[in-house]
Amino acid sequence: MKRLLIAASAMAALAAQADEGMWQPHQMPQIAAQLQAKGLELDPNSLSSLDKFPMNAVISLGGCTASFISPKGLVVTNHHCAYGSIQFNSTPEANYLQDGFLAKNYSEELPAAPGSRVYITESVTNVTDDVVGDIAANTEGAARYQQIEDNRKALVAQCEEAEGYHCSVQSFHHGLEYYLVKKLAIRDVRLVHAPALSVGKFGGSIDNWMWPRHTGDYSFYRAYVGKDGKPADYSKDNVPYEPISHLTVSAKDLDEDDFVMVAGYPGRTNRYRTADEVKHTFNKFYPQAKALREDLMDIIKTTAPEGSDARIRYESTLAGLDNYAKNYQSMIDIYAKSDFQQRKETLEAELSGWMKASKKRQANYGESVAALAELVEDSQAMSERDTVLGYMRYASAPYYAQRLLRLAHEQEKPDATREPGYQERDMTRFGEGLKRLSRRYDAEVDKAIFAYMLKVYAELPKSQRVAALDTYFDLAGGWNEKAVMAKLDAMYSSTKVGDEATRLAWMDADLATLEKTDDAMLDFAKAMYETNMAMEKEEKAHSGELQKWRPRYMQALIAYAKEQGKPIYADANSSLRISYGSVKGVEPRDGMYYTPFTKVEGIVEKETGIWPFNAPTKQLQLIKDRDYGKFVDSQLQSVPVNYLSTVDTTGGNSGSPTFNSKGELIGLLFDGTTDSIIGDWDFDETRNRSIHVDTRYMLWAMKHLDGADNLLDEMSIAY
Amino acid sequence: MKRLLIAASAMAALAAQADEGMWQPHQMPQIAAQLQAKGLELDPNSLSSLDKFPMNAVISLGGCTASFISPKGLVVTNHHCAYGSIQFNSTPEANYLQDGFLAKNYSEELPAAPGSRVYITESVTNVTDDVVGDIAANTEGAARYQQIEDNRKALVAQCEEAEGYHCSVQSFHHGLEYYLVKKLAIRDVRLVHAPALSVGKFGGSIDNWMWPRHTGDYSFYRAYVGKDGKPADYSKDNVPYEPISHLTVSAKDLDEDDFVMVAGYPGRTNRYRTADEVKHTFNKFYPQAKALREDLMDIIKTTAPEGSDARIRYESTLAGLDNYAKNYQSMIDIYAKSDFQQRKETLEAELSGWMKASKKRQANYGESVAALAELVEDSQAMSERDTVLGYMRYASAPYYAQRLLRLAHEQEKPDATREPGYQERDMTRFGEGLKRLSRRYDAEVDKAIFAYMLKVYAELPKSQRVAALDTYFDLAGGWNEKAVMAKLDAMYSSTKVGDEATRLAWMDADLATLEKTDDAMLDFAKAMYETNMAMEKEEKAHSGELQKWRPRYMQALIAYAKEQGKPIYADANSSLRISYGSVKGVEPRDGMYYTPFTKVEGIVEKETGIWPFNAPTKQLQLIKDRDYGKFVDSQLQSVPVNYLSTVDTTGGNSGSPTFNSKGELIGLLFDGTTDSIIGDWDFDETRNRSIHVDTRYMLWAMKHLDGADNLLDEMSIAY
Repeated sequence: MKRLLIAASAMAALAAQADEGMWQPHQMPQIAAQLQAKGLELDPNSLSSLDKFPMNAVISLGGCTASFISPKGLVVTNHHCAYGSIQFNSTPEANYLQDGFLAKNYSEELPAAPGSRVYITESVTNVTDDVVGDIAANTEGAARYQQIEDNRKALVAQCEEAEGYHCSVQSFHHGLEYYLVKKLAIRDVRLVHAPALSVGKFGGSIDNWMWPRHTGDYSFYRAYVGKDGKPADYSKDNVPYEPISHLTVSAKDLDEDDFVMVAGYPGRTNRYRTADEVKHTFNKFYPQAKALREDLMDIIKTTAPEGSDARIRYESTLAGLDNYAKNYQSMIDIYAKSDFQQRKETLEAELSGWMKASKKRQANYGESVAALAELVEDSQAMSERDTVLGYMRYASAPYYAQRLLRLAHEQEKPDATREPGYQERDMTRFGEGLKRLSRRYDAEVDKAIFAYMLKVYAELPKSQRVAALDTYFDLAGGWNEKAVMAKLDAMYSSTKVGDEATRLAWMDADLATLEKTDDAMLDFAKAMYETNMAMEKEEKAHSGELQKWRPRYMQALIAYAKEQGKPIYADANSSLRISYGSVKGVEPRDGMYYTPFTKVEGIVEKETGIWPFNAPTKQLQLIKDRDYGKFVDSQLQSVPVNYLSTVDTTGGNSGSPTFNSKGELIGLLFDGTTDSIIGDWDFDETRNRSIHVDTRYMLWAMKHLDGADNLLDEMSIAY
Repeated sequence: MKRLLIAASAMAALAAQADEGMWQPHQMPQIAAQLQAKGLELDPNSLSSLDKFPMNAVISLGGCTASFISPKGLVVTNHHCAYGSIQFNSTPEANYLQDGFLAKNYSEELPAAPGSRVYITESVTNVTDDVVGDIAANTEGAARYQQIEDNRKALVAQCEEAEGYHCSVQSFHHGLEYYLVKKLAIRDVRLVHAPALSVGKFGGSIDNWMWPRHTGDYSFYRAYVGKDGKPADYSKDNVPYEPISHLTVSAKDLDEDDFVMVAGYPGRTNRYRTADEVKHTFNKFYPQAKALREDLMDIIKTTAPEGSDARIRYESTLAGLDNYAKNYQSMIDIYAKSDFQQRKETLEAELSGWMKASKKRQANYGESVAALAELVEDSQAMSERDTVLGYMRYASAPYYAQRLLRLAHEQEKPDATREPGYQERDMTRFGEGLKRLSRRYDAEVDKAIFAYMLKVYAELPKSQRVAALDTYFDLAGGWNEKAVMAKLDAMYSSTKVGDEATRLAWMDADLATLEKTDDAMLDFAKAMYETNMAMEKEEKAHSGELQKWRPRYMQALIAYAKEQGKPIYADANSSLRISYGSVKGVEPRDGMYYTPFTKVEGIVEKETGIWPFNAPTKQLQLIKDRDYGKFVDSQLQSVPVNYLSTVDTTGGNSGSPTFNSKGELIGLLFDGTTDSIIGDWDFDETRNRSIHVDTRYMLWAMKHLDGADNLLDEMSIAY
């Protein structure tokens, strides 16, 4: 309704920019007019201040987003973001994953899965000059890569001198700009509340990416710190962290066309790739990766039959494989029907014409186009192999053996010169990863995965083969199933990498010790080591070249886009961003319309009694009785469950607080519709829809279904 | 829009009746006010006159509905209604089914499949007194059945003294009323035009019952008569039939909420069944029948692999099996989620209370309730067997052998006393059925079907077994796969029932000849004959009892419903009916809305290049070029393909002309949405939607895609 107040001319001007863009907070003043025109009542400039409300309540969990919603460090995020922690604490006797979990007081709260963190971004500083300012134009390949790495590391090391902080230097516009991001890293994170699986994951993978949706995708953590208020390892003496701000949770009406804003950590988009890169990705990479994912799922399901102990260990792996197998297929389908490729090619032709029309532009950017094209071609030649080797990491035994051997090698060097991921600052996470594996590993399944990936590898053309791997498994003459299986049987029966204590001991062992250690997987790691290092070196040299040329290409693209009046925002890179838009239905295809809200009655419609459509009996009764309390939407005359909005988001945004115009929490972003999946490459404003869980559903379920009054009392709720 | 003109009070009064009802034409004056309030501009009373426009242009094809749309006997119906005729004329060299067919002039028109008829209902006369007026109250069971049959037959025989007519006495309200229906039967029917399969059946069985829909479900026949204007067998000297009226085809705009009316021959509804019948049907019969259908499909597909000649013969059988397997499953699902059973039981409780509240009512109807309940219980006890024996008819060799032997037996009697279906009047259709089998039979597939049905039969409880069948296949001691298969191998290798000439010769042979004929399937028929006759006799006795008590029960129901102000229309029984309503979208489930129209762009969205989503290349190009000619809807800015309406229809309505308020043809009914499937039992005005093909799509495809200008010139089109 508010939109009707905007003058038509303003609307026309805005139309060009639509609701596209994942904006860096410092860009907020640039788009203040749009935000206000859309309905934002907060001061847009305030969104640039990470130390002020509401941005200081927005946090990262590493891979997911969350927010503070109480003065005592209560954190809300998606159920699927807390899934690992709920699973970690579940046993057959106390199956919190199945039945849900509610701590009635601090003492009942449970440690989150190893490695869980709450990251609070305190500052984001442009450090482009520090990273690339001193690199000579003629520095090439590996040297350029190394110098950038060294500069980044130095900045990080300096930043992390402050205890309890996690710092990173993030590249924007593919190396055109660098920002130093300084985050307070709280490492005592506890599970507070999760609804039953049949609420938190209602619809399961069947409903994944789908609408209509009825998923209660919310869960609660709490951040704890030492008594001094500083991050600390888990201790029962720790105290709840007290954030400067926390969000007020709205139970108020929400309507179609209302303003919504999302703040979070979107992972990765590819909106500025070349036409060739797009073509290769959609025609080669996605089909190959999708097939590998499906095959891996088949193998896991066959080797770990439903109901087996092994299956439980692989549920989360399966969910991940399935999620992106579907994602890739949807992307392939949408791409095939769209004119995306053609628009990319048109854009490049236009860009080329624009450059040719000016000698200055030609001089500035001309070389970069040709250089980038060549680099892209180089990497595509090895893409099949790289994908296969990437998916080979699903075999954890060889992967962790290689990681551990690499660590021992890295630890021979001074900390500052070690490869990122193997520095002292990484060791807590490294160790937690080794521990986590204990709950996600089964030797038989792992062996089957490794065998399958080796077989796929063996089918690669000769030009993409890796000599050391061919030699180790005697693959040069072709695939010999029996011989490879015999070798794998021997390897898995004589390795201790599956044993947690052994892994942790190897993590602390020096290189000499590991070199002497007789273990089949370590032997494999040793056999591959030099080759791995050589391939990594090649890759770095390639990256160095890309770091040289892609920023120049981006400059051209940006300059051209600016002339066209198009929005300029950087591709997502897991840094803090703000997206805005409005609550809105969509016509996903001819003859059909998705209404913007779903209602709790829709749960009853979907209910079959069988997972994933087995809502709790009590919930069904509450709906039958229309026991909706204070959470009825006046227009829907029911409790809204999920809603659609136009905001531009992607993976990593999961759990993102969704704000109304006043900055109140009105939902958690948790998914996008199938049509939005290609949004990682191509934003289509008529089709793109994000999916949010409505705070009124969360509050209703907490109050009426799970009796989480202790948490509701702690929160600030606006009725 | 017109509805806004209706005063609120009128709306409230109409709300009770909604758009429910399949009305007999003679009832039109009773509902004139509703029709006019909805928007009908024709005189409602004119719809009662079968000899006047527009009802005289509405025809039956026997199982489907059609209409005259030119002064030269051009008939339009659904593609799926003409499917058999298109298939009949298709060869690998001239695959009209695949590619479509267009006769550019009369001489290119092709004979429709054997047995094709155009029936024009000329009169419908209430003959209740003639059928049951002279039956004594104490006449029971078989005697009552026989007397009703004799009375009906006599009426039919008298009516059919007029040459070229087909007459029937149809029961309304389950025997409460009988009407004599007199139809002119035109038996030279020719195929004129059919679009390509990928237009006429676009979406195939995947889209069956579905929305959004993009099916061009239309085809054209022409009715031919002798030079004297009377029905005649096919002859190239025949001339096009000249109907008194034909419909004008509309190419004008149509909008949501516009008035629509459908006239046609709905097959069968069950809106007045008892709660026990409903319970049994949804909990026993549908699940059993659905499983049998799926198993039969599996067997056919396995025995006749894709691409085989045999598969082509069974495509239409498969389509029929699939259609109702889906139908039954949908009914089961909707029933399980609905309160239908509870409402039925409540109604019966109320009815019972209403009867008990008055001695007179109790005296009139009381006995009928108890008697009907007992009869229903009786038939349910044998329902499993009856279903199995019914599906055994999918094995054509034994079925036709039994039919032919029965015919020989019947022909021993005077024509008038023969069983309906075996009288002289039935012989043309009988023979055509024997011929049609040649294109729909494969001995291996038939044997596999028979074997499967025998196995299912052998699993029936002892109480439901048939001694003769047990004996013939030695099943009393249990199922012996090997023995039965050996027997079947022998039967199929030594029967000639699969040979068309033999079948036709047997049709003409007398009983003595058949008794002497040595044929394995005839032997089986002979072994079963006495048992079949005994079972039929039992069934007739049961029917006689139902014919006694159900009309009385219906009287009670009707009297009660009248008091409640509820609409009283008879269950569908393949007689001519009129339904009305409006174009309307629907919310099929929470979070989703079906818009009332689909557009041609939706075809492109669904297009995959693979059947059933392989639209013709030329059509895709036309859409890409927006080459829409005069057929663009002003609101949609495209050519509408299909639309939804609230009209109350069922199977048999397929091909029904859909009229606008002026009686112009605006579409052909061809399906209902999944949610409407339960409409055969329970009309839910919020969910029920019929699906129509829009005449503008038909005209557009004829003109721009298939160049059927000769037909367009012949038709009256209102732009």
